[in-house]
Amino acid sequence: MDPTTPAAQPLEFDVVVVGAGPVGENAADRARKAGLSVAIIEKHLVGGECSFYACSPTKALLRPIHATRASQRVQGSVGATVDPVGVLDRRDTWINGLDDSGQVGWLDHVGITLLRGTARLLGERLVEVDGRRVAARHAVVLATGSEPFVPDTPGLREAEPWTNREAATTRRIPERLGVIGGGVVACEMAQVFAALGSEVTVLVRADGLLSRNEEFAGQAVAKALRRDGVDLRTGAQVTRVSRDGAVGVTLELADASTVVVDELLVATGRDPGTGRLGLESVGGRTDDRGYVVVNDDMEVQGPSGDTPWLYAVGDVNGQALLTHMGKYQARACGDRVGARAKGAAMDGERMRPWATALGPPQVVFTDPEIASTGLTEQQARDRGLTVRVVDIPMDAAAGPGLQAEGYQGQARIVVDEDAGVLVGATFVGQDVADLLHPATVAIVGKVPLATLWHAVPSYPTMSEIWLRLLEEYGL
Amino acid sequence: MDPTTPAAQPLEFDVVVVGAGPVGENAADRARKAGLSVAIIEKHLVGGECSFYACSPTKALLRPIHATRASQRVQGSVGATVDPVGVLDRRDTWINGLDDSGQVGWLDHVGITLLRGTARLLGERLVEVDGRRVAARHAVVLATGSEPFVPDTPGLREAEPWTNREAATTRRIPERLGVIGGGVVACEMAQVFAALGSEVTVLVRADGLLSRNEEFAGQAVAKALRRDGVDLRTGAQVTRVSRDGAVGVTLELADASTVVVDELLVATGRDPGTGRLGLESVGGRTDDRGYVVVNDDMEVQGPSGDTPWLYAVGDVNGQALLTHMGKYQARACGDRVGARAKGAAMDGERMRPWATALGPPQVVFTDPEIASTGLTEQQARDRGLTVRVVDIPMDAAAGPGLQAEGYQGQARIVVDEDAGVLVGATFVGQDVADLLHPATVAIVGKVPLATLWHAVPSYPTMSEIWLRLLEEYGL
Repeated sequence: MDPTTPAAQPLEFDVVVVGAGPVGENAADRARKAGLSVAIIEKHLVGGECSFYACSPTKALLRPIHATRASQRVQGSVGATVDPVGVLDRRDTWINGLDDSGQVGWLDHVGITLLRGTARLLGERLVEVDGRRVAARHAVVLATGSEPFVPDTPGLREAEPWTNREAATTRRIPERLGVIGGGVVACEMAQVFAALGSEVTVLVRADGLLSRNEEFAGQAVAKALRRDGVDLRTGAQVTRVSRDGAVGVTLELADASTVVVDELLVATGRDPGTGRLGLESVGGRTDDRGYVVVNDDMEVQGPSGDTPWLYAVGDVNGQALLTHMGKYQARACGDRVGARAKGAAMDGERMRPWATALGPPQVVFTDPEIASTGLTEQQARDRGLTVRVVDIPMDAAAGPGLQAEGYQGQARIVVDEDAGVLVGATFVGQDVADLLHPATVAIVGKVPLATLWHAVPSYPTMSEIWLRLLEEYGL
Repeated sequence: MDPTTPAAQPLEFDVVVVGAGPVGENAADRARKAGLSVAIIEKHLVGGECSFYACSPTKALLRPIHATRASQRVQGSVGATVDPVGVLDRRDTWINGLDDSGQVGWLDHVGITLLRGTARLLGERLVEVDGRRVAARHAVVLATGSEPFVPDTPGLREAEPWTNREAATTRRIPERLGVIGGGVVACEMAQVFAALGSEVTVLVRADGLLSRNEEFAGQAVAKALRRDGVDLRTGAQVTRVSRDGAVGVTLELADASTVVVDELLVATGRDPGTGRLGLESVGGRTDDRGYVVVNDDMEVQGPSGDTPWLYAVGDVNGQALLTHMGKYQARACGDRVGARAKGAAMDGERMRPWATALGPPQVVFTDPEIASTGLTEQQARDRGLTVRVVDIPMDAAAGPGLQAEGYQGQARIVVDEDAGVLVGATFVGQDVADLLHPATVAIVGKVPLATLWHAVPSYPTMSEIWLRLLEEYGL
């Protein structure tokens, strides 16, 4: 078969998944486990943004810094320092020199066919991959993720800024690093490069950081960045950027000041890049931010309603730009595709990612960590809930004080007073990432607070903050 | 008033709590919050065993060792070592030179009357404290805890061994330390002293360690102790002990071998010391291990049934010898006493520590940590449940691998297949302590596994092991 001949018979699979990041991998794997033949299409790296440019490398970079500080903060543990070369070497191990052969080996092992190339929908159940046609007997799943968004500030693109990709993979530690943005990538990478020795300037247009979190979370990270020597400027609007070989990158700000850096990281959001997907061929819609519109079952919405053979999961549908939420959607989607193909009943509970609407869990791996799940206070009020908020300092329990001398942090739960259940929680502090999951279980399981009172945390773990929260609530 | 005159009018309070450890403090505090006057009686230190001889000092000792190793196990963090003097100084800060003035200040602050002395029941609602009579209008709460048990092995007591008290408070790091026992105290302290430079020999009568946990937990700790250079001997029965000023402490074993050490820690269990409580004056019963027999509402059981003015909470009732479970009972007890005194309805759900029967959560702060909650596989089978066990290695998720290079550990959940809910969980590995609480919430909240599937852990936290467990289960 000559794939360059359009008339050639298309390749045919039960399911075609577009995008081989963790989300596509999970959708493909679940469909395969249901007995379907599956092709997965990837234009760059199997494993995707998360494995090579986001979650894995950034956490590989952050963990040695956290572990070093954790040691430094405990009396009786001495001498720990960050070794920048070791940190970069560790990151390189995780991204394997941008070689995805490990992930490709897994696809081979489980029997998912990998097609390298750029995919585009041609029509119902039909995809083109670099000129080759691939037909899906049952379903096409779009799991194409998102790309860094670079705003059209004059001169910015010409200055060839770093995005999360370059920041997560570089071996260069610039003397001066500028960061535009105040979200997760901006905060995490500012802290990494400050710890590795860069002089870091963060320019945020908003008044604070991490605007999707509770306000106190962003405030804690702002304080920490300044503690780490980062020059954090809020309300800063970059109006022009230019790069000069000798000087570096010059940023002009709306207040007429300038900042000169050696390298510039732009971390101002994501772009789903859906213009290239061929959605128009099947009437699929996108929202005003460019994300594919889906229903609760992740079926793409067209002009005449659901498109029950075309799904969009993960970043591309814009519901929750988080690997774990995309994987959650992907598992439900793969199961759904499998059940539908067999003509089996589709278990609404299991094959619908209904917990997304409760508010996704997320951890920002800064120091302090920010771990949140469910709704913020404001989100809960915006939904019209009768809200009660409980705030306590983390050192209200003994566990955090044993974890680090002078432990500082904050915990909040958001309670739906009418239902008597938790609807949100946020933890700020060292090593709080794993304090989060009990909140997610309580929220998703709708465990009454009166029952949570009987879930006793072990003394003196950090988790005893849960007892303090419920005591403060009045139980 | 002359307290030495028996005829003197007794002191009178609404509630008299015997024992001012965390358990007694919590019972007293909850009764006080219900508007009752409360006296608390303490013969030694306010704050109790936990604050001065157990939880707090041992975790203060262990944390610098854990933090140092966590740093050493991550590429990019270099140079960390344990500073033994710093470790001991840290512990001393936590136990405040065995000065309980901080805790006494809290009692004063909240308005609980402290009576120093040894208490003994004289009759209904009447207690004697070193010759002074103290009457309770409503209730007496026994929260006297437990003491180290020292077996009657020939020569052992004469050799003046350490118990948990001396091990937790000493500034001396013996060149050679012997440990008799294989439970929590034995394992934690063997590891501490090995890390501080002692040559440690652990003699366990049983075949393994931590016999109340899943077998793989004790195996992991045994492996770790040996890794740390501890000479661990299982099936070892000490038949005679002698101390000689020049030689040290000589232990003779049943197999005719001998072990010579400079100091000997006996960690073979606890003794509730109930013989001194005057229980016979009110007909209170103890079980064959000496623990006070109570009903589900913690009311002491006498020959004619409940004694609805006399409660026993914490170690002394033998239900769960863990500070957090004692505090849990104490909160329920204090609330119950308060409600009963007011003639208010006693909320059965809130004022009864019903979750105790589900199996208490516990963390052993060894390296690796052992975190368990609910039932072990065997306990679940013994209850006649239709059990399914899911075992996975901790490195099945990415989080542990990011936490430490070459992370090793194990996770198990025990599922009640008929009910479709979790009934037990055990985690073994570095930093697993806070992976436990989601399991406790799920067990206590009886959250169906099908619902837990929608509680998504954040990538790449350690908590993602929850996803792997449920996937392995077949969801």
